[in-house]
Amino acid sequence: MAKYYDLERLGYGKNDVLLMVHADDAGLSCSENAATIEALETGIVNSFSIMVPCPWFLDMANFAKHHPQYDCGIHLTLTSEWKQYKFGPVLPYSEVPSLVDKQGFFHAKRELVKKFAKPQEVKKELKAQIDRALANGINPTHLDSHMYTLGLTKELLSVYRELGHEYQLPIFLSDQLLSEVGNPLSLQEGDNIVNAVHIGNLKAMESIGLDEWYTQQINNLKAGFNVILIHTAFDNMEMKQVCVDHPNFGSQWRQMDFDFFTDPNTAKLLKERNIKPITWREIQKITL
Amino acid sequence: MAKYYDLERLGYGKNDVLLMVHADDAGLSCSENAATIEALETGIVNSFSIMVPCPWFLDMANFAKHHPQYDCGIHLTLTSEWKQYKFGPVLPYSEVPSLVDKQGFFHAKRELVKKFAKPQEVKKELKAQIDRALANGINPTHLDSHMYTLGLTKELLSVYRELGHEYQLPIFLSDQLLSEVGNPLSLQEGDNIVNAVHIGNLKAMESIGLDEWYTQQINNLKAGFNVILIHTAFDNMEMKQVCVDHPNFGSQWRQMDFDFFTDPNTAKLLKERNIKPITWREIQKITL
Repeated sequence: MAKYYDLERLGYGKNDVLLMVHADDAGLSCSENAATIEALETGIVNSFSIMVPCPWFLDMANFAKHHPQYDCGIHLTLTSEWKQYKFGPVLPYSEVPSLVDKQGFFHAKRELVKKFAKPQEVKKELKAQIDRALANGINPTHLDSHMYTLGLTKELLSVYRELGHEYQLPIFLSDQLLSEVGNPLSLQEGDNIVNAVHIGNLKAMESIGLDEWYTQQINNLKAGFNVILIHTAFDNMEMKQVCVDHPNFGSQWRQMDFDFFTDPNTAKLLKERNIKPITWREIQKITL
Repeated sequence: MAKYYDLERLGYGKNDVLLMVHADDAGLSCSENAATIEALETGIVNSFSIMVPCPWFLDMANFAKHHPQYDCGIHLTLTSEWKQYKFGPVLPYSEVPSLVDKQGFFHAKRELVKKFAKPQEVKKELKAQIDRALANGINPTHLDSHMYTLGLTKELLSVYRELGHEYQLPIFLSDQLLSEVGNPLSLQEGDNIVNAVHIGNLKAMESIGLDEWYTQQINNLKAGFNVILIHTAFDNMEMKQVCVDHPNFGSQWRQMDFDFFTDPNTAKLLKERNIKPITWREIQKITL
């Protein structure tokens, strides 16, 4: 069966509480890039991943190339979920017809990927995404999956594992996220999983607020490899319009993520609780 | 030979000074869209054209669809001239290999289009751009050419004319612009041209300033169909980054364009000089 990463091989103790604060969706927009860069440089975000098919990929790739001290993963992308801001495959869309809508953009919803995407086309496109990242000077530390779409089915999960093997990169696997996308029993021998994942939700945002929710999560972190998944962007004209009619993971949410994880009080809280940062670059050492 | 439009057929007098203030590049970015919309609604911009291959096309198409009172042309696009913000064909790029670079983006420079683009691929791609505009609810009033690339050679100019005929749309032709792109002698019988085109330049911007330059142009307008070509955008984070290292037609320039053509004093100046607005929708009446 799947195993947790053996963190003792990295010199950590059994009771060490390790935390990665991971910013998804770099490359999505100018706002997302600028906020992610500032959160890496001034906040406690210590890992991010980049969406190769998005309009602002080259801008973020340029940052990643010149700042190899930060984890940079490839946020493998198969969906284009925003209303009027769309993107499609890196490959000519005629080569991956099962991945796109009538205009050649990625499907808007995970369910459409589940229904239509052929695994061989998924693999071809995702290899093209990784290859384009490499061609633009990125030295990736890990692979992860936008909207955890690669967790949807056993077949997609196999593609994910194969990509990890072929490019010799750790892939972000989580039993929790697999359960959340409706595919709880697909882990297998040889899979490494993180101990716990923490992602905000709209209900928490609208009731206690994300700040309080994140604080509670941090106060309750347990030993092992914890990941808080966030999306940092500025709630400006561009980002409001990217996220129009889409409050879930919307523009305000992303500003809150930025604010909380660049707040010195958050860094102080981690220090008080003796929570240690962990990165994929470290994890690479025990997976290669 | 080519003729000026017969404006008397529209009821104008021989000595009437007619002016179109045309905003190019809608669809390029969120900033460009927002500023163009505001300049149409509150300023004296009365015509614009949209770049179908750009990331913010759908956002602007949605505006155009719901605001048919404004001229909306298709800004036929064959170049991707910004440093880290790139776009490629509407068609799968494998179908139009002569139009793209190694990554499948349009060539960065007009000269590369001149050197590599095959006219049959140009036509196929530009038909796809017009068709996508139609499919997204745009009722176009005219065709024009981003960076006047279609004026580069006789062959490209033929494609431009054919598209006008096939879609029954006026095309923006100017003897001045043809001279500027190095192809001054390509006009022929049946071509309709505007009387004069006015586009700012970096030297004017850096010496007397664009405001003064535009004021001089307006004060010296002559009778006939005049076009002032501008590019309206807000000089914000997104636009600065789109235009990074590219002051020519850059972010500051676009803000100046917005400011001047939404300034009530500019509208007052036109009124004092009895300059009348003209649109492509009117011109359509004498070209169909």
